[in-house]
Amino acid sequence: MSTNSYPLLTTVNDPADLRRLSRADLKTLANELRAFVLESVSKTGGHLSSNLGTVELTVALHKVFSTPQDRIVWDVGHQSYPHKILTGRRDRMPSLRQLGGLSGFPLRTESEYDTFGTAHSSTSISAALGMALASKQKGENRFGIAVIGDGAMTAGMAFEALNNAGVADANLLVILNDNDMSISPPVGALNRYLAQLMSGQFYAKARDVGKQVLKPVPPLLELAKRLEQQAKGMVVPATLFEKFGFNYIGPIDGHDLDSLIPTLENIKSLKGPQFLHVVTKKGQGYKLAEADPVAYHGPGKFDPAVGLVKPATPSKQTFTQVFGDWLCDMAAQDSRLVGITPAMREGSGLVEFERRFPKRYYDVGIAEQHAVTFAAGMACEGVKPVVAIYSTFLQRAYDQLIHDVALQNLPVVFALDRAGLVGADGATHAGAYDIAFVRCIPNMSMACPADERECRQLLTTAYEQDHPVAVRYPRGAGVGVKPLEDLSSLPFGKGEVRRETQSAEAGRRLAILAFGTLLYPALEAAQALDATVVNMRWAKPLDTELLLEIARTHDEIVTVEEGCIMGGAGSAVLEALNAAGVVRPVLQLGLPDAFIEHGDPAKLLSLQGLDAAGIQASIEKRFGARRSVAAATPKVA
Amino acid sequence: MSTNSYPLLTTVNDPADLRRLSRADLKTLANELRAFVLESVSKTGGHLSSNLGTVELTVALHKVFSTPQDRIVWDVGHQSYPHKILTGRRDRMPSLRQLGGLSGFPLRTESEYDTFGTAHSSTSISAALGMALASKQKGENRFGIAVIGDGAMTAGMAFEALNNAGVADANLLVILNDNDMSISPPVGALNRYLAQLMSGQFYAKARDVGKQVLKPVPPLLELAKRLEQQAKGMVVPATLFEKFGFNYIGPIDGHDLDSLIPTLENIKSLKGPQFLHVVTKKGQGYKLAEADPVAYHGPGKFDPAVGLVKPATPSKQTFTQVFGDWLCDMAAQDSRLVGITPAMREGSGLVEFERRFPKRYYDVGIAEQHAVTFAAGMACEGVKPVVAIYSTFLQRAYDQLIHDVALQNLPVVFALDRAGLVGADGATHAGAYDIAFVRCIPNMSMACPADERECRQLLTTAYEQDHPVAVRYPRGAGVGVKPLEDLSSLPFGKGEVRRETQSAEAGRRLAILAFGTLLYPALEAAQALDATVVNMRWAKPLDTELLLEIARTHDEIVTVEEGCIMGGAGSAVLEALNAAGVVRPVLQLGLPDAFIEHGDPAKLLSLQGLDAAGIQASIEKRFGARRSVAAATPKVA
Repeated sequence: MSTNSYPLLTTVNDPADLRRLSRADLKTLANELRAFVLESVSKTGGHLSSNLGTVELTVALHKVFSTPQDRIVWDVGHQSYPHKILTGRRDRMPSLRQLGGLSGFPLRTESEYDTFGTAHSSTSISAALGMALASKQKGENRFGIAVIGDGAMTAGMAFEALNNAGVADANLLVILNDNDMSISPPVGALNRYLAQLMSGQFYAKARDVGKQVLKPVPPLLELAKRLEQQAKGMVVPATLFEKFGFNYIGPIDGHDLDSLIPTLENIKSLKGPQFLHVVTKKGQGYKLAEADPVAYHGPGKFDPAVGLVKPATPSKQTFTQVFGDWLCDMAAQDSRLVGITPAMREGSGLVEFERRFPKRYYDVGIAEQHAVTFAAGMACEGVKPVVAIYSTFLQRAYDQLIHDVALQNLPVVFALDRAGLVGADGATHAGAYDIAFVRCIPNMSMACPADERECRQLLTTAYEQDHPVAVRYPRGAGVGVKPLEDLSSLPFGKGEVRRETQSAEAGRRLAILAFGTLLYPALEAAQALDATVVNMRWAKPLDTELLLEIARTHDEIVTVEEGCIMGGAGSAVLEALNAAGVVRPVLQLGLPDAFIEHGDPAKLLSLQGLDAAGIQASIEKRFGARRSVAAATPKVA
Repeated sequence: MSTNSYPLLTTVNDPADLRRLSRADLKTLANELRAFVLESVSKTGGHLSSNLGTVELTVALHKVFSTPQDRIVWDVGHQSYPHKILTGRRDRMPSLRQLGGLSGFPLRTESEYDTFGTAHSSTSISAALGMALASKQKGENRFGIAVIGDGAMTAGMAFEALNNAGVADANLLVILNDNDMSISPPVGALNRYLAQLMSGQFYAKARDVGKQVLKPVPPLLELAKRLEQQAKGMVVPATLFEKFGFNYIGPIDGHDLDSLIPTLENIKSLKGPQFLHVVTKKGQGYKLAEADPVAYHGPGKFDPAVGLVKPATPSKQTFTQVFGDWLCDMAAQDSRLVGITPAMREGSGLVEFERRFPKRYYDVGIAEQHAVTFAAGMACEGVKPVVAIYSTFLQRAYDQLIHDVALQNLPVVFALDRAGLVGADGATHAGAYDIAFVRCIPNMSMACPADERECRQLLTTAYEQDHPVAVRYPRGAGVGVKPLEDLSSLPFGKGEVRRETQSAEAGRRLAILAFGTLLYPALEAAQALDATVVNMRWAKPLDTELLLEIARTHDEIVTVEEGCIMGGAGSAVLEALNAAGVVRPVLQLGLPDAFIEHGDPAKLLSLQGLDAAGIQASIEKRFGARRSVAAATPKVA
């Protein structure tokens, strides 16, 4: 990126540089920053709309507060690019979301300005309150500042934090960044309420509010006001947030530094929990993104002058699309089906389902806990809920899965997208633990389709059961095995042998048991090793019959899964063998006991030794080298 | 219980019987019901205060609504005894919370009137909304009714459900049973707000509200009112719940059938989500419980005429008390320590800590998600949070544990009480899964103390680490090994050999690896079997060095833990042996893949084969009978 395009921005290497600038210069800086974000994201891909929306707010926060001594926590954090650029990471923006490069989210290990790592929504108020109260205990005088979107504000966790913070005597500032758009358009009563707050004269007066807050309130007058309220027997505050004990200020225009900076400066001098409502526009300043913030939420690379272009050749069908198609087809066949999403319509492939079956589509907001128990309630009445939820977001509803669904053995299907490594989003989004944390729950089953065709079939199998079943599938496309058009299913709890070893050499007969999409690299590795390959398909129930037959006829066993080794499907194999009193050496391949950073998904898998070459190498390291058998070809369905 | 004492109650075997009664008879019924609850709980133990508080509400709900066609969901459910008594289970009340007897919570398998199983708080609105919307989809005309306490209302999940329900066109009735007391006294902004709603003239007018709501609102008048509000540009509703889109009615006196019944009848005819605020008194009608509802929250057996009596001989020290003592002692030594509880001050043993260190005590409300991320925020600032949380309630904060604590590798100590079976509370409260769901998380460690002394020492070890550590310990007392008074620790990640086999018979040398308190029955079993016994102490990190040494010198290995076998500590042993290329037959003893019902804890463990006799029998079944070696005595610390 040319330095000449950003003459002022390139002089800001630290918020201290920024704090020296005049108001006029800050406006210039904001304009350059916006242009820089656009150019940068257009070259790397990443989140765009949300970052264009937080340019002025970021400038104002670093201008007014003493960062990093004051702690800014960016909720979700995908709006933190301007913050990264202003806090010494401008030059590293070309490495964004790439292996070894900048994270797409705040990361404590990346910068002292990233005070709290985020990515999953609605954690910021809890964290900022913790920081503010801890600082107070240590006798320090810091602000904890949470910047949270209106979508993230609907999550229960944010309310838990508000409820707690409202009675705490903390230097806490919650900034509601109200842009009326989470990834899916927001739903629910809170967003309707916020829209009311902003409607009509309210928003017209936004700038006046910025001025009003500047008027010093004489303490005596304020005291008199409070006494009067108490005398009336109760306090009737104006907004919902005041009911929670916050001092509510706003709404103000989040793109106007002349409102933002004086308002924030005034807030600095107030005591107790403060709530600032700023109104911003996603995609602000880039017409194409303003017009379609959903499309520009997280684009790939593009030419800013042209905008997003539909690719000439359609890309491979993703598992998400396979799920979306299946859901529509099953809904067409079975009127009992309902689809439930916690605010992930696009990401979970529900756009077409909502269009075709609007009355059976439930976007419950960013509310994973509610989503799962809501599904349980529906299942009690004999409708058939399908909960579309990312693997990592199911972590948000773990107790509800156990306590409301599994314990009552209710037939709910969980479509777990983003199981395994996810690439650019990194460790926070990697669905690494689901096999371990789901299979230990009684009554739960879990299917691990190996490809697109099986994904559709196993979803049908899951749907046919009278108990809860999770189907896990990864982000992106599979090997390209086209799904069948019908709604045929596969046997419940049964695997299949995909390749048989030709070796009869006692003591050397090798079997690879694959769970999920790593079946295909396993088949490749098996070709070189002359190994038997079993497509296990189910992490729970395990196909024990098939497993014991394999153990009877093989000497060495390898398990492969794109999930954590600890407690994963390989451990299920170990448990089953031991329970049957069968002793065989088992090599478990999967994700290690470590958080894995962002980067290209194929590269990440390769680094973990989970591509064909890596699988082969691990096996040879453990069980010794094998002779390649060219004649033995894998059976492909 | 004498039939003569309850002449009317004994004629009510079903809500249909109740619906035939006059208002005057219903009042008599309520009085008998209250007396019956008191007599019954005094004989069996169980929840008392909350059930005395819901007598009239229960009578009114069954009178007005067509149960079980209309669905009542009792949040938490420990206030459902009057409901159980009125729905055909009166005669089974003497079996309450005992093996094979009535559950202390609603249970779908127990009665068609128990429409949704509860026990963990704040699930009721989600479930009732799901039921109401599912019924609508099926063209049925049912009410979904959630009865939720003011404590449970502070949980984020309840807000997620309110937010979603407020925009749904559902026959939903949320009844806020406002008694201003969860298990611990309630905290936070919402409860302060509710207190305001009830204060002064508001509550004085409660009966009037009951009458007002009876006045039919002419539809045209209502329409005109709405148009007027819209014309003003915004709607400014009166209460927080109206801001969420509910029609708010109340507060009304929840012990006055003359208010309750007409109000509920009127609500039946209203459209859309309704919110009824009733005010009740925990312990109502039993002076001793009214005066001290905390003490009478969940008493054991007692004489109603006398009340609770302090036992003459102090009972054994529980693990909860060991933790509470440790927390105070460590807090006295280290001013950085803070204690955090999600509304479980009494249950988690924090009463004394709050008394001595009020400024370092944080009761964040029923808000497990917030509690954990709040702790993470505090840990970022260098204070040392100890989160006291039941094993099953940590399930509520699983994503926060992964995403906010473990991923950032923050030094937070989790004191997991109620790990393993819990007895009378049953499956919902059994901490059966924590080893499996915690150990798969990178950066986490988990200690499993075998007795009281180790519990204190391992808490210190956990506290000394610079990363997150969970310490799990069961409900109730251990074997009685008195904790040391100092704050000494045990080595991190290291186990110890507690007994060595005398056998040198190749192929028959047996080692039992115990995780946690089952060490003691394992030692007993080992005496009979002449087995080596290892007190493993840590589920993660596993003491691999010791494990491999044991594997080298033994032929058969048994793992014992009070937690699920699937993915548990035994599986960690299997994984480690296989990773080291060591092949040994392993027998995993622990909790099976099934939810285990309520009953006497020792009896339940025995039924699962986890007492000394059961452990011995399982080992002999798998590895054959052994010769008893009387000479080999266990080393006891």
